[in-house]
Amino acid sequence: MQTIRVETPSAKYDVVTGSGLIETLAPRIERAAGRLPRRVFVLTSAPIWALWSHCMEQSFQDAPIVLFLEPGEKFKTLASVERLLRQMAQAGGDRGSLLIAFGGGIVGDVGGFLAAIYMRGIPYVQVPTTFLSQVDSSVGGKTGVNLPEGKNLVGSFHHPRAVFADIGVLGTLPDRELRAGLMESVKAGIIRDRALVRFMEEHVDEVLGRDPKALEKVIAASIRMKAGVVNLDERENGLRMILNFGHTVGHALEQATAYKTLLHGEAVGWGMVAALYLARERGTISSKQFDRLENLVHLYGPLPALKLKAAKVAAATGGDKKNVGGVKRFVLPVGIGDAGVVEDVTPAELEGAVGYMLAKAAELRG
Amino acid sequence: MQTIRVETPSAKYDVVTGSGLIETLAPRIERAAGRLPRRVFVLTSAPIWALWSHCMEQSFQDAPIVLFLEPGEKFKTLASVERLLRQMAQAGGDRGSLLIAFGGGIVGDVGGFLAAIYMRGIPYVQVPTTFLSQVDSSVGGKTGVNLPEGKNLVGSFHHPRAVFADIGVLGTLPDRELRAGLMESVKAGIIRDRALVRFMEEHVDEVLGRDPKALEKVIAASIRMKAGVVNLDERENGLRMILNFGHTVGHALEQATAYKTLLHGEAVGWGMVAALYLARERGTISSKQFDRLENLVHLYGPLPALKLKAAKVAAATGGDKKNVGGVKRFVLPVGIGDAGVVEDVTPAELEGAVGYMLAKAAELRG
Repeated sequence: MQTIRVETPSAKYDVVTGSGLIETLAPRIERAAGRLPRRVFVLTSAPIWALWSHCMEQSFQDAPIVLFLEPGEKFKTLASVERLLRQMAQAGGDRGSLLIAFGGGIVGDVGGFLAAIYMRGIPYVQVPTTFLSQVDSSVGGKTGVNLPEGKNLVGSFHHPRAVFADIGVLGTLPDRELRAGLMESVKAGIIRDRALVRFMEEHVDEVLGRDPKALEKVIAASIRMKAGVVNLDERENGLRMILNFGHTVGHALEQATAYKTLLHGEAVGWGMVAALYLARERGTISSKQFDRLENLVHLYGPLPALKLKAAKVAAATGGDKKNVGGVKRFVLPVGIGDAGVVEDVTPAELEGAVGYMLAKAAELRG
Repeated sequence: MQTIRVETPSAKYDVVTGSGLIETLAPRIERAAGRLPRRVFVLTSAPIWALWSHCMEQSFQDAPIVLFLEPGEKFKTLASVERLLRQMAQAGGDRGSLLIAFGGGIVGDVGGFLAAIYMRGIPYVQVPTTFLSQVDSSVGGKTGVNLPEGKNLVGSFHHPRAVFADIGVLGTLPDRELRAGLMESVKAGIIRDRALVRFMEEHVDEVLGRDPKALEKVIAASIRMKAGVVNLDERENGLRMILNFGHTVGHALEQATAYKTLLHGEAVGWGMVAALYLARERGTISSKQFDRLENLVHLYGPLPALKLKAAKVAAATGGDKKNVGGVKRFVLPVGIGDAGVVEDVTPAELEGAVGYMLAKAAELRG
């Protein structure tokens, strides 16, 4: 078991990762929140609850009030939020109530947002059940939902009182989701943790074979990287931008495929390939480093094949929410374990990088 | 012109009150926010915009993008919020955009909430156009909307970059709304500002006659009181509770009359009468102080007549969002210019106080 501390100007809390956390949740929350409130809500999805309710409920004296969110991005909406807020009000939730977000990234984002705006803010804890949400979205306080106009356009910064990332629940995760989630760990290593890059290169079989020790090591290192960045830049005014490595082109790929073909991590995987290419062209990484890092991405693949036009993908990079005032920001690795933000990427450079990535992706289609 | 400084752990900004602020808004916002963003949104209502658009737009080089909220509490909903967020996204609003909430309390609450959750928070300024919103809701960072289950059950704490309370716009305010708004100033004096009590006793005619100097004095003192309390207790964990003087019974009256008969300030006026009675019974104010303060409430009346059952009103006090864990909190004045919170008011005491207030209200029906 490992504990990573998040300390920002507005919140201080622990992220705990290890096995057997779900079974012992109530006393853990009590310790983290000071007390276990009279009314505890659990936001979850029916498939997760079917698998884990028995395990989770055993540590609670009074069973928590369960709220369900239908699985899938299309339910990450203000309409779902309104329905759930009303259920909380009808069940007598007050300012002292606590919410547990128990599920993947969407449950975490919606649950955090409910907690952020119900009665102007109630405490909550994150209990992420996918690899991706364990290493990424459960840490950092970003919450929110989509609008028809774009993803995550609505939300709040609202930190949980604690995060419990139980490795035991990953046993039921489909292999493709695990591999996609691991792309965020690859990202973590490239931008900020040389040792994680090396560990992931040397322990591919253990990690993909779900060896608990190897998983805990990768998850803890990924969380530590993210927490470290969030601690220095809570509101994404500067450093936190580097967490978007691979995401500018990644988001464009998701958009160009209407969020249907690719898992988020897979899009980020291809996005990293494009960004690595750009970094090599700019000379912020060497050819040798490029080969090594591109290889690392593919070690945790296979990434799905793509059939897209470079111009279409390049155009789709314009709509990113992080482009303040129209400037196109791009995160590039600097060597291995460091990264920076550039704002002067030309359309030609971008198309070149996307073109390289799409050629690679076409090869996979054979 | 007077400037009052708000300084909380999470925000520092000025509240400016005086004449001629609307005409000079753009440079004022530029100074407060550091720069005037490329995209400025104005949330307002059609009647306000019809009266004041010409005046407001004259200081902006590029006309702001205008968003409309239908007047009335029944549009203070998540459905309105969703529609407005989508309009902002469609108009290309980004994280650097700024929103001006230009209207009464509902526009201020909804506008602040839009700014709180659009892209996880954008800057905004409050330009309140009613007496009530100038002295109360525009200061303190509370934002939000209603659910069918209750008022203000959804929202955020999100402070504006500045508040501009222009006394010039009060010229078109109906007399009844002015008198109702002044109840919050009466409240301010009773709980925290002896000098304001005296000033309001001695200058009834000037204040009700809308003499600019007298209005500015009352508004500035009311804002100063509220800012002082918010500075000490941003999140309503303790001291800020005293701002609810008159509001426990006031909310119950609004609920018992289905928010149709009474303006908020009028309900608070009657609520203060009940709370003053309770304070006299408990001995936290003397009989002489009771007479003087009850008289002050009526000087700024007339409060509307009521025909309600004491038991019904007393029962409705239970649903207040500030009653954490079922405890019934009550704010009582201690002498003139101070107040405290008690948590042990018995049902009999409460019914006695409500009964006194309803008897007074019945007298008015003649």
